[in-house]
Amino acid sequence: MKDLRNEILEVISNSRRILVAAHIYPDADALGSELALGNILTSLGKEVCLYSEEPVSHILDFLPGSDQLVNTLPPPTSFDCAISLDCGDRHRLGKAVDALLTVHPFVVVDHHTGHKDFGDLRWVDAGRSSTGEMIFALSRQLEVDVSYEAAYCLYAAIVSDTGSFKYSSTTPETFRVAGELLQKGINPQEISGYLFDNFSKNRLQLLQNVLATLELYENDRIAFIHVSRKMFDRTGTCGADTELFINYPRSLSTVKVAIFIKEIDSNMLGVSMRAKGECDVARLADEFGGGGHRNAAGFKIIGETIKSLRLKLLRELIPLV
Amino acid sequence: MKDLRNEILEVISNSRRILVAAHIYPDADALGSELALGNILTSLGKEVCLYSEEPVSHILDFLPGSDQLVNTLPPPTSFDCAISLDCGDRHRLGKAVDALLTVHPFVVVDHHTGHKDFGDLRWVDAGRSSTGEMIFALSRQLEVDVSYEAAYCLYAAIVSDTGSFKYSSTTPETFRVAGELLQKGINPQEISGYLFDNFSKNRLQLLQNVLATLELYENDRIAFIHVSRKMFDRTGTCGADTELFINYPRSLSTVKVAIFIKEIDSNMLGVSMRAKGECDVARLADEFGGGGHRNAAGFKIIGETIKSLRLKLLRELIPLV
Repeated sequence: MKDLRNEILEVISNSRRILVAAHIYPDADALGSELALGNILTSLGKEVCLYSEEPVSHILDFLPGSDQLVNTLPPPTSFDCAISLDCGDRHRLGKAVDALLTVHPFVVVDHHTGHKDFGDLRWVDAGRSSTGEMIFALSRQLEVDVSYEAAYCLYAAIVSDTGSFKYSSTTPETFRVAGELLQKGINPQEISGYLFDNFSKNRLQLLQNVLATLELYENDRIAFIHVSRKMFDRTGTCGADTELFINYPRSLSTVKVAIFIKEIDSNMLGVSMRAKGECDVARLADEFGGGGHRNAAGFKIIGETIKSLRLKLLRELIPLV
Repeated sequence: MKDLRNEILEVISNSRRILVAAHIYPDADALGSELALGNILTSLGKEVCLYSEEPVSHILDFLPGSDQLVNTLPPPTSFDCAISLDCGDRHRLGKAVDALLTVHPFVVVDHHTGHKDFGDLRWVDAGRSSTGEMIFALSRQLEVDVSYEAAYCLYAAIVSDTGSFKYSSTTPETFRVAGELLQKGINPQEISGYLFDNFSKNRLQLLQNVLATLELYENDRIAFIHVSRKMFDRTGTCGADTELFINYPRSLSTVKVAIFIKEIDSNMLGVSMRAKGECDVARLADEFGGGGHRNAAGFKIIGETIKSLRLKLLRELIPLV
């Protein structure tokens, strides 16, 4: 079998204009990988378009190059190839998915378990901690010495997707890559500070409000927290400020499944679920029209109250824990 | 100059019975280093006594070998040498300091900045992320292949003292060591889980109580939180449950100095201070009879109320931020 990455190198080598995209609502792994790959390809003399459906959130605009993203897709015919990053499912490419997929060859680089195949050429490796780690490997094969900016983005990608090297997806290779990125002069404290120590006073008040909603069921094996529009209004915060709050109920030693219900607007709720060990919340999310990983999944739903949805979920969860 | 570590190797080689100690109220770096060194020395056929003034707290008793610590010091004359770990100041050896220091040669291995020399032979390297990282280097020089148990303890030591690789003390060497330790089969998620996801329901309630005490001064550059005996009683928690709470006010993006005042008993307060960047809280702690690092220090005080102490500290802090 021809080495997949060699085929990808060939596609890149044969392309002059390259379109790069990541999943919608990009996290630091998606966005960091996109910006780093853009930087790497540009250094090879390629003309690169970094596409993202939405502007970069204020949580991630510290990533160098984040001002280079375009939110309007240029004519797909103008590209010699497209590369999708950190996207486990074509639908997560967003509204422009059909237009994006008219670009050929369409290359997919992803590390999600349960990746649903799309595109022409796929390098999918669920053994990798992050797409950022894969982009670093690609830079080696492209024989590009990553710049300070690319190292900064890739380090943020890896740190974010491993929960700062806490998840079991962290491998000796992850540490080897992190060590090499550090040697480019980036400051781990600075990047972790942006990713994890970015609380505002209002956000800390919101956290306090949300922690007060904690409810535990089934001998403390199931935890629920929620956030209401009222709490956002009272503390002057928004949905993005609840990032990582789900980790608090998850951190309870007894908890097997943690659920965070978010009032998105008067008629819509968003749900984030985290499971430990054998519990599979991706399947549950799927039933509600959502998706995700085995241990981290979510969905959106209309026409339910926080209370009615909690009851519904509880019935489904009790047999799982 | 003779290489310090060679002299230490010589001392170890010439000793049959070795006393190992770390600082009082040992954190995961102190305790993990002590247990790992014990494991390494035992594998070399040494007879080892691992001394600690107090029993291991429930937060750290997951460390393999933690049941081997002794809390009563055997006659110092029975040892051929002593090794002190992660201890920046002789006084942090605890009540038995004088007896401990009668053992010769007395070897000191430490990574604290502002280390105050004691003992006969010192390997002090403030460029190291942790004492755990130093013990790994020592194992290499002793030509010992670290066991799973020692790797577990050293990984916990490094993860704990770098805040899971978030602090600027994290170097390429730190990642190199972490990668090598992972290859011993340890699970990063399991160890991080014990260190960081060890919340009880009561502890989460305590956090919520403590967050509610947040007060900010000087354009939100100084943050205070506190915990009272009442909160401990109400939530059924104790002092050890407040571990890492100081990180919440510290995580506010505006904050330069975060202070956590803890009511230890009716007449005594404990104070933890964290500073970012140029702010030096070690000097302030020193004025109150305490100590620590530039960015992390503390002290204990009697005869003050939370309110009176906050005012006193505020007066000292305003010129610093």
